[in-house]
Amino acid sequence: MEGRFTILSLEPCRLVCEMRVGEAELRPGGTVSGPAMFTAADCAFYMATLAMIGTQALTVTTSATINFMRKPAPGPIRAEARILKLGRTLSVGDVLLYSARDRAGDAAPVAQASLTYSIPPAR
Amino acid sequence: MEGRFTILSLEPCRLVCEMRVGEAELRPGGTVSGPAMFTAADCAFYMATLAMIGTQALTVTTSATINFMRKPAPGPIRAEARILKLGRTLSVGDVLLYSARDRAGDAAPVAQASLTYSIPPAR
Amino acid sequence: MEGRFTILSLEPCRLVCEMRVGEAELRPGGTVSGPAMFTAADCAFYMATLAMIGTQALTVTTSATINFMRKPAPGPIRAEARILKLGRTLSVGDVLLYSARDRAGDAAPVAQASLTYSIPPAR
Amino acid sequence: MEGRFTILSLEPCRLVCEMRVGEAELRPGGTVSGPAMFTAADCAFYMATLAMIGTQALTVTTSATINFMRKPAPGPIRAEARILKLGRTLSVGDVLLYSARDRAGDAAPVAQASLTYSIPPAR
Repeated sequence: MEGRFTILSLEPCRLVCEMRVGEAELRPGGTVSGPAMFTAADCAFYMATLAMIGTQALTVTTSATINFMRKPAPGPIRAEARILKLGRTLSVGDVLLYSARDRAGDAAPVAQASLTYSIPPAR
Repeated sequence: MEGRFTILSLEPCRLVCEMRVGEAELRPGGTVSGPAMFTAADCAFYMATLAMIGTQALTVTTSATINFMRKPAPGPIRAEARILKLGRTLSVGDVLLYSARDRAGDAAPVAQASLTYSIPPAR
Repeated sequence: MEGRFTILSLEPCRLVCEMRVGEAELRPGGTVSGPAMFTAADCAFYMATLAMIGTQALTVTTSATINFMRKPAPGPIRAEARILKLGRTLSVGDVLLYSARDRAGDAAPVAQASLTYSIPPAR
Repeated sequence: MEGRFTILSLEPCRLVCEMRVGEAELRPGGTVSGPAMFTAADCAFYMATLAMIGTQALTVTTSATINFMRKPAPGPIRAEARILKLGRTLSVGDVLLYSARDRAGDAAPVAQASLTYSIPPAR
């Protein structure tokens, strides 16, 4: 993930970041592939969780649902992650994805994801 | 649904309502059943969609994901529905559920749902 | 749930049952409501899990996704549950729902659900 | 996708394929990344749908839920896709993912996905 994500803002249980999208992740017709959008949602929520609990390398996605709503422009993706529950063993929340070149506050999301991360017991 | 739901606020693409919960929907240990929470999310999003497109009786849920996060108190449920995409054939959005007796703005959600409704073509 | 469900078959990690559907769960146009189908999926998977781990009353649904695919006939629902992972703390699997009056092996499913149940630690 | 997927079997509404996994998709600890598993599920279901309807380049994922159940071995992934509903505008189904090096019929799935694809109207 080195260099690929830029964190734009961080508050308790909230993280906004931008993900660069490579040529290989564009699709014919000039849009971003589904797996690239999944990556943006997954990594944003992972970073939001680590920002709260500290770096526990074993934290893993246990389930994810993603609804693709609009065709993103062929460029970077902005991900707005929100933790709704941070328990002892699970972090649950959602992420809205936007075309980063759309003006913030103005544009409609291109996808919405709900995620659950498993937090391993501290040793 | 008659008499069961009270609409608390309505703006474009947003609806907040409260659902009464009957004795039969409580679970041992004093909580609200999963199907009752599903009903609250489903109906709130249905009403939010109808408020935007007019009453089209054939509008139907095509998919729903619900994450149960906390045990609700045995009483009414408040549902906050948000439409994220309203297309010609689909309405997509999410709903946060709260124990209605918790003070608004204060409490954490008990469940989160993402829903997709199919809108039949107008005749 | 007393009297509502009939177990039709039970094997390791597999359970097939039929759920009676009451008048209040039918929808205009002669079909079964979404929350009733959610109930069928949720209870079938719950029973499949309890059949494997013994009755632990605190076992609870943590997440569920349901895709509604066809209009069920206004009558009982058959649910075919399958456990895909039975871990120490989670039971994960899926359920196919059918109109029970359709001949088995013949008909197409009316809905598909994926479920995750949390298993509390044994005391 | 050139050269990355090998179709192992194809029947009406069923497709089994194997996806090569590159170095960049492995995670520390020797496993396959979540986005790579998402790619396997998404592409397998896409190919299963195209095999039924012909190549319509505009067919797009509208929603996907993936449950990660076990750590896959660091190597190729086998995806078993099943279409449960093929309508005029939607293809709905599920995919089981396995570590391809596990012997078929023997091993437990590493992940399960439910997917919905939108089919554009024929011109």
